[in-house]
Amino acid sequence: MKVQGVPYRSVWVNEKTGKVEIIDQTKLPHSFAITQLNSLEDTATAIQDMWVRGAPLVGATAAYGLCLALKENASVSSMTKAIKTLMSTRPTAVNLRWALETMQEKLKLLSESKRSETAWKLAAEICDEDVKMNSAIGDNGLKIIEEIWDKKNQKDRVNILTHCNAGWLATVDWGTALSPIYKAYDADIPVHVWVDETRPRNQGSSLTAWELNSQEIPHHVIVDNAGGHLMQQGKVDLCIVGTDRTTASGNVCNKIGTYLKALAAKDNEIPFYVALPSPTIDWRIDDGNHIPIEQRDEEEITHIQGVNQDGKLESIRLTPEKSPATNPAFDVTPARLITGLITERGVCSASSKGLAELFPEKVI
Amino acid sequence: MKVQGVPYRSVWVNEKTGKVEIIDQTKLPHSFAITQLNSLEDTATAIQDMWVRGAPLVGATAAYGLCLALKENASVSSMTKAIKTLMSTRPTAVNLRWALETMQEKLKLLSESKRSETAWKLAAEICDEDVKMNSAIGDNGLKIIEEIWDKKNQKDRVNILTHCNAGWLATVDWGTALSPIYKAYDADIPVHVWVDETRPRNQGSSLTAWELNSQEIPHHVIVDNAGGHLMQQGKVDLCIVGTDRTTASGNVCNKIGTYLKALAAKDNEIPFYVALPSPTIDWRIDDGNHIPIEQRDEEEITHIQGVNQDGKLESIRLTPEKSPATNPAFDVTPARLITGLITERGVCSASSKGLAELFPEKVI
Repeated sequence: MKVQGVPYRSVWVNEKTGKVEIIDQTKLPHSFAITQLNSLEDTATAIQDMWVRGAPLVGATAAYGLCLALKENASVSSMTKAIKTLMSTRPTAVNLRWALETMQEKLKLLSESKRSETAWKLAAEICDEDVKMNSAIGDNGLKIIEEIWDKKNQKDRVNILTHCNAGWLATVDWGTALSPIYKAYDADIPVHVWVDETRPRNQGSSLTAWELNSQEIPHHVIVDNAGGHLMQQGKVDLCIVGTDRTTASGNVCNKIGTYLKALAAKDNEIPFYVALPSPTIDWRIDDGNHIPIEQRDEEEITHIQGVNQDGKLESIRLTPEKSPATNPAFDVTPARLITGLITERGVCSASSKGLAELFPEKVI
Repeated sequence: MKVQGVPYRSVWVNEKTGKVEIIDQTKLPHSFAITQLNSLEDTATAIQDMWVRGAPLVGATAAYGLCLALKENASVSSMTKAIKTLMSTRPTAVNLRWALETMQEKLKLLSESKRSETAWKLAAEICDEDVKMNSAIGDNGLKIIEEIWDKKNQKDRVNILTHCNAGWLATVDWGTALSPIYKAYDADIPVHVWVDETRPRNQGSSLTAWELNSQEIPHHVIVDNAGGHLMQQGKVDLCIVGTDRTTASGNVCNKIGTYLKALAAKDNEIPFYVALPSPTIDWRIDDGNHIPIEQRDEEEITHIQGVNQDGKLESIRLTPEKSPATNPAFDVTPARLITGLITERGVCSASSKGLAELFPEKVI
């Protein structure tokens, strides 16, 4: 996507320097800063501290983290150690595991001398594949938006609610949940997005709002509490969210609070879709309870960062000093609340049957 | 309730100076500041800008606002004008209308010379009555907590989730939703409170957390997004919230986001109670859609206040400058999602029948 006219991906290799570069997403929306990743350790920190985040982007960045490790030392033990380090950065998103296992499987068969060079090629392939899948998700989701627009007799606008950031910043490009919205906007359908703030890290009000601003797509930021009311008032036509891990039976693990929006959508008979590239599916499990839910630092709740009156980034404390906080980062939305899954191969029901029809080769 | 050993109400007349005093709740939890209200205009500002908030406290403070107006000019036209000014401060809570209409009914029959003196007596009565009702709500709600504690074989602790602040700061004393919790704590039942942050004004993480800290009641602050997940995980035994207006058929208007928690409680078969003194019931309407929902300033979403590293209160911007926000302050939870209403006269079902049985004289 373009940022002030210049096309960007969210992770890339600088052609001149050969270094891995990312957008430091902790600085957005207040400043657009590019950071270099020079080592495995840099990459692990970038993922853990969420300079990059979003299941597909975490996978792609981890792939480059492995490349950086192999550049130093291409032995099998170095590879195993690097994979272990990267795997432990964030427990919930499955793309991380998928990307590293995909690479490991191919790299372990090679001689040490060829391993590093091949790794860089594989990482680039993972990125290109991600972009392709997300573009296809956009095309498939566009049909859903077109149908709603037609049902409204092409009047007013299509109001879409999204939670967290599943835009191009969460992937290598295009995004998952936002990809159909970008495609709809390009197809001249008047879309308007309700942007859930997404506490505690505010990925909605910082990243999604920033993305939509950059592409000039009409939107309003709302607090996470407001979505249910807007649905009751008939102000939401459709919900689309992303996912960090979806089970083989269609249970969706996504940013904390997704479940509440899915309940409200069901209660108000509003379609609730989840957009995902297939590497986000964990074919090994059915039950959402088997997904590890990351518990993050309570400071994400007790403190918050923003721009002060002098235009400087500042962190302030919100809560009483003595009050502890609990910070689970994800929840699981049961398949029964989900209208459909938008994948690169098409839209299917959130069920074993639906997923098996689209991905017959994956069924274990 | 006591603050550092000193008993306070949330609004009172200073016996020495005869002035109306309040706790400036916009400064909490970072500092405890007492402010004088010297005129009708002061009072209107205090309510509008939420130095005081909470349906019962707004009613009580408005009563004193009328006193301050009548002290200046006790004519009928002055009274009518003052009531109009106070009524327009906040549209959703019905206690405001109830307090002012209760006073007007009695005061209009009096001669001008007696009006002001009687008004101060009536306002004091409204306050005392509020304290009495809330204490009774606590006793009635305590029975529910005791039952849950017994069902758990008096093991572990009773985990109660609450949204916004319906504590003593939202009333004259005791609170509504927190009153049963205070009584349970006093009865040696080990309660633990999940405190919803309650964006955008964070009344949970600032006021409720501050209250519970002051009374040394165990609690954790959570983001509004987390409650559904905690319920799915079996970590919530009971929800209790307050209300700004409840219809005669038991639909509950409360702080934005309440509806989402009620949906999650229903989905997980967790009891969801609403605590309210009867002046919060609007006997004139059944349908929650007839309740006016206050739309507040978008700056409540785009900016936030907290304490910076130098210990000073500071406001920072969270969102991109170009992104607009929408800020509905309340939502309506349908009666079908509510286990029961805890009133000063007992607990009843959230229905016309339930309310009519407890308040037969009120049925229109």
